[in-house]
Amino acid sequence: MTFSVAVSGASGYAGGEVLRLLANHPQVTIGAVTAHSQAGSRLGSIAPHLHALAEKVLVQTTVENLAGHDVVFLALPHGASAEIAAQLPQDTLVIDAGADHRLASAEAWAKFYGEGYAGHWPYGLPELPGHREALRSAKRIAVPGCYPTGAQLALAPGYSAGLLEPQDVVIVSASGVSGAGKSVKPHLLGSETMGSMSPYGVGGGHRHTPEIEQGLSRVAGEPVSVSFTPTLAPMPRGILTTATARVKPGTSQDQLRAAWQRAYAAEPFVTLLPEGQWPATGNVTGSNQVHLQLAFDEHAGRVIVCAAIDNLTKGTAGGAVQSMNIALGLAETTGLTGQGIAP
Amino acid sequence: MTFSVAVSGASGYAGGEVLRLLANHPQVTIGAVTAHSQAGSRLGSIAPHLHALAEKVLVQTTVENLAGHDVVFLALPHGASAEIAAQLPQDTLVIDAGADHRLASAEAWAKFYGEGYAGHWPYGLPELPGHREALRSAKRIAVPGCYPTGAQLALAPGYSAGLLEPQDVVIVSASGVSGAGKSVKPHLLGSETMGSMSPYGVGGGHRHTPEIEQGLSRVAGEPVSVSFTPTLAPMPRGILTTATARVKPGTSQDQLRAAWQRAYAAEPFVTLLPEGQWPATGNVTGSNQVHLQLAFDEHAGRVIVCAAIDNLTKGTAGGAVQSMNIALGLAETTGLTGQGIAP
Amino acid sequence: MTFSVAVSGASGYAGGEVLRLLANHPQVTIGAVTAHSQAGSRLGSIAPHLHALAEKVLVQTTVENLAGHDVVFLALPHGASAEIAAQLPQDTLVIDAGADHRLASAEAWAKFYGEGYAGHWPYGLPELPGHREALRSAKRIAVPGCYPTGAQLALAPGYSAGLLEPQDVVIVSASGVSGAGKSVKPHLLGSETMGSMSPYGVGGGHRHTPEIEQGLSRVAGEPVSVSFTPTLAPMPRGILTTATARVKPGTSQDQLRAAWQRAYAAEPFVTLLPEGQWPATGNVTGSNQVHLQLAFDEHAGRVIVCAAIDNLTKGTAGGAVQSMNIALGLAETTGLTGQGIAP
Amino acid sequence: MTFSVAVSGASGYAGGEVLRLLANHPQVTIGAVTAHSQAGSRLGSIAPHLHALAEKVLVQTTVENLAGHDVVFLALPHGASAEIAAQLPQDTLVIDAGADHRLASAEAWAKFYGEGYAGHWPYGLPELPGHREALRSAKRIAVPGCYPTGAQLALAPGYSAGLLEPQDVVIVSASGVSGAGKSVKPHLLGSETMGSMSPYGVGGGHRHTPEIEQGLSRVAGEPVSVSFTPTLAPMPRGILTTATARVKPGTSQDQLRAAWQRAYAAEPFVTLLPEGQWPATGNVTGSNQVHLQLAFDEHAGRVIVCAAIDNLTKGTAGGAVQSMNIALGLAETTGLTGQGIAP
Repeated sequence: MTFSVAVSGASGYAGGEVLRLLANHPQVTIGAVTAHSQAGSRLGSIAPHLHALAEKVLVQTTVENLAGHDVVFLALPHGASAEIAAQLPQDTLVIDAGADHRLASAEAWAKFYGEGYAGHWPYGLPELPGHREALRSAKRIAVPGCYPTGAQLALAPGYSAGLLEPQDVVIVSASGVSGAGKSVKPHLLGSETMGSMSPYGVGGGHRHTPEIEQGLSRVAGEPVSVSFTPTLAPMPRGILTTATARVKPGTSQDQLRAAWQRAYAAEPFVTLLPEGQWPATGNVTGSNQVHLQLAFDEHAGRVIVCAAIDNLTKGTAGGAVQSMNIALGLAETTGLTGQGIAP
Repeated sequence: MTFSVAVSGASGYAGGEVLRLLANHPQVTIGAVTAHSQAGSRLGSIAPHLHALAEKVLVQTTVENLAGHDVVFLALPHGASAEIAAQLPQDTLVIDAGADHRLASAEAWAKFYGEGYAGHWPYGLPELPGHREALRSAKRIAVPGCYPTGAQLALAPGYSAGLLEPQDVVIVSASGVSGAGKSVKPHLLGSETMGSMSPYGVGGGHRHTPEIEQGLSRVAGEPVSVSFTPTLAPMPRGILTTATARVKPGTSQDQLRAAWQRAYAAEPFVTLLPEGQWPATGNVTGSNQVHLQLAFDEHAGRVIVCAAIDNLTKGTAGGAVQSMNIALGLAETTGLTGQGIAP
Repeated sequence: MTFSVAVSGASGYAGGEVLRLLANHPQVTIGAVTAHSQAGSRLGSIAPHLHALAEKVLVQTTVENLAGHDVVFLALPHGASAEIAAQLPQDTLVIDAGADHRLASAEAWAKFYGEGYAGHWPYGLPELPGHREALRSAKRIAVPGCYPTGAQLALAPGYSAGLLEPQDVVIVSASGVSGAGKSVKPHLLGSETMGSMSPYGVGGGHRHTPEIEQGLSRVAGEPVSVSFTPTLAPMPRGILTTATARVKPGTSQDQLRAAWQRAYAAEPFVTLLPEGQWPATGNVTGSNQVHLQLAFDEHAGRVIVCAAIDNLTKGTAGGAVQSMNIALGLAETTGLTGQGIAP
Repeated sequence: MTFSVAVSGASGYAGGEVLRLLANHPQVTIGAVTAHSQAGSRLGSIAPHLHALAEKVLVQTTVENLAGHDVVFLALPHGASAEIAAQLPQDTLVIDAGADHRLASAEAWAKFYGEGYAGHWPYGLPELPGHREALRSAKRIAVPGCYPTGAQLALAPGYSAGLLEPQDVVIVSASGVSGAGKSVKPHLLGSETMGSMSPYGVGGGHRHTPEIEQGLSRVAGEPVSVSFTPTLAPMPRGILTTATARVKPGTSQDQLRAAWQRAYAAEPFVTLLPEGQWPATGNVTGSNQVHLQLAFDEHAGRVIVCAAIDNLTKGTAGGAVQSMNIALGLAETTGLTGQGIAP
């Protein structure tokens, strides 16, 4: 059985990555591929790496063009997806790679995004407790942000197991520049980004902070507070998350390791590396894998967890396809079995 | 039907890339995976990007370990493969990613490699005239070098069509640093290679020169002479070949374009881009595709052809798997349908 | 004695590099620093690396703001500099880093730039025969393009010595992305340029081709014809030029080497490396040095010369300051003695 | 007046950077330049970027070769410098870029380095309270580690002003690969490091942790405890430090900003950027500058300070030369006035 799929925002990096994965997904047929200013172009001129789809012509992002498919992926600026999603049939599986339906708190939405809160949808991070089940019957799915994917997967097992203090989590993440999208801004030029690292959105201002707190708080069963600093790293893809939380008194290194092992033993896309081996983003490029390692810094009383993902794959499009597979009743790894590209 | 495959030199970049492709090849089973100093290690500690094969343990590169498979890939230093290949059964398909069996001229071998000429095997570049047929019944296949893959595919159509002068071809290629292998030399350190370009093997000294000339001469039906300069570019993967040859008097731009179009119209892995669009190595990362474009510089009387490949995929392991598919009677694209990873 | 200097186009990369060098030049005082859309900004917000000049405020690029200085640097789009230069006093030293006054042929100008040929000025490449003398009394100087700097310095000694054929020169150059300037175009984004190489302006279309031919023809005393292909390399700075020309019959490797040695023995900014050592752009980053090496490919009958420069330093701003020093009667190396930044 | 200077370990990155700065220092003469396995080589073949010193020949690192200079820089593996320093005359200014004399606690030394504690020397970070004075009369100076330079400068003002809690400091730093030195290890190859980020020494194991704690504790007047995680970033140079500490109750954003402003207002090498502008390592490449910015994350109760330095300049050789200037009674900025190289 195959499902017809439409992809909006196909000229951007997130939409392009969805198409890259779908092009090799054995149970989907790619239908409409939509864009805004690039409508009318061959995909081969916008995204030449998608050779199998080079002759596809982008059409305008409209409800008409998107309707009539089994699945619709939305890779649009926030605000745009909510508007379109509201007009798509209830039984179409709509998967939003944007921010519009991630936050359960209207207040948090208002603070970080302004007006236009559109409610929240089942959250496409199947590895968090209870989420996979919720996705099975979902017709609307909110794909997590790229930073929150790494951050939540890094710390969730410790909160599930009740081993970490909810206060004073500190997360510093380094992202490849594709995380900033294809928007043409001076500070994203190759000349500016190669050979240089810089932070941004420091001091709680990044929109992914409430999303990380929401996810960890659900797992912890109490409010978790996070200091999150994103940085821009000189690489096209990848996020390295360094997450650290205070460990509850009396917790041992063995208990910590056991909690993460238990949480991810059966997960097809999360690997807790053997002790002593640390993750590198270069090992998950283009794959849906998460590589994790942790250490108990007894001196500081903190667990430090490092997680490597590809921001466009597991961090966006891979997570989206994984969620689609679950919602369609397919094997969760369908179309997502590619290895990382290294070196 | 599935075939059992052994891969030697699996701790190097070429061997690792063969494994990456085979891990998702639907008609092979990976058997012995061999190395030299790394024998005994888990593949997951040597090549963590190959998550599906993480628990495989490397065994010593010996005839015993390699024998008993339908297919054996050799990714070994030159000299080593000839020795092992000679001891493998005649009906085992042996695919040598090294240099030992590429050159038909014992003299050229002696000049560039020294002693120990081991004869030559069918050459795994199916896109050259007559090569695909020769590969169908082959039990021994020599995989082309990475530079020669790009260089020959860039110029062969012009020689097939009789439009180019055989003298005075000039080729300048830029390769990602993985082309130098995993050998630990000071000039290959990240500190030295990032942000810097440098030539090497200049003045005809590079071992790939006779291989390029051999291939183009066969196509041209007369000796083709090439000035070839390889350069090291600050990227992990990819080769950009800029190849230029003098055009025979009276040849038009249209005739040139038609020759390349004709040569590659039916090729699954070679794309002549639409006029005005130039290849970028970033668009073929991890894929077996060749992106080509040409221009007739009438002022200089030369055709300039630029070709982008991934040195480890089409330039080594992808070409090897493509040749294997042909020799095993499988569809040529089996296991090689992945899109490029971009950005 | 100090000279007052104004710099226009100071928000771009060329203007910024002029300022970087002038900030440490012991015999100049920096006066007006001008820009277009960024006028009114602190330099510290536009170019934070110029810490000594952080509090300078950019003013509008007008004749009024530029007049009244001993020296004016123009780092403006072509067309703009000619217009401004025409209105500056005849005894102001005007140094144009743009293309407006490089070409002696109105016809070549028309072909590559269109209307508005504004005549040509003394050419700021002191290492070419006769040029240094012409610069001593100049009040108007045209700074060479970045590619032509590397290309002409690579081959000029061979033409001076009469050892090279004028026909069929082939030059392939790889430039860091700062060569494309600070203009915000999608293909110059970090995501697009990191890890990828691509050609552009192929087939004689690049505007630097006539400039290279003009310079080499002057040295050769006969028309030299060049096939020039520029490529974009994944690094912020640097140009590696690979230039190759046919050697006249009977010429030896020793004669070739002697010609280059003779040409550059007394040059403070050009180093012919010891035999066997090849240049790397990373060794000249931020310095005004040219690193050169050559090989005689007897098989192909060609000399291959590789030259590494920093496109923004020797290729633009360093060459400009060097020419200024000559025209002002200062020691030629004043303010240009910095070493390369490596690794 | 000029001083004669010897540099040991000149074939490594730290030694090379000392030479780069000294080559343009107006008050020193470079005498012996020493190495171990590279003794006998021209500096031009080891470090071609140091064009002014190309003809210097490296001699063996011995007490005999180093003695007889006014100043000796040691850029040697730990253990080696202590041994040599002990044999140099008491009135020679010895500046150790290695770790041997940084720690005041023999116990901390034993834990992180093992045997052979050699005592501690005045610490070459003049911007910390009281340090500049101690350096004025010093004849032995321990240059801070690269990470500790960024980390201590990031947080010291908050501790000086009594605004930060001593417990639970979290620091995550990203360093360019030159920070790992020129040692030839597989994980430092260009193929492995380009396009990839990875942590190392996680969980308190990094040797720079006790040094950071020592410095901040002195400033705070009470023990400061730090969780420090270093990461390797795909760039040749630069360290971005993200340091965060809990703010004492009742402290305001204005008080925080004022503390940092006050601490660095008179410092020639530290710039607190205007509000809203964040540091990028690319803006300090090759310069001795520190770019800093801070934000008060009231939600998390933490100040977040980001600092960008060049690990080889301010982080090693620049700090060393700055300390030398102080100890010799020269203007502190002598030879260190270069701007950053950007882009």
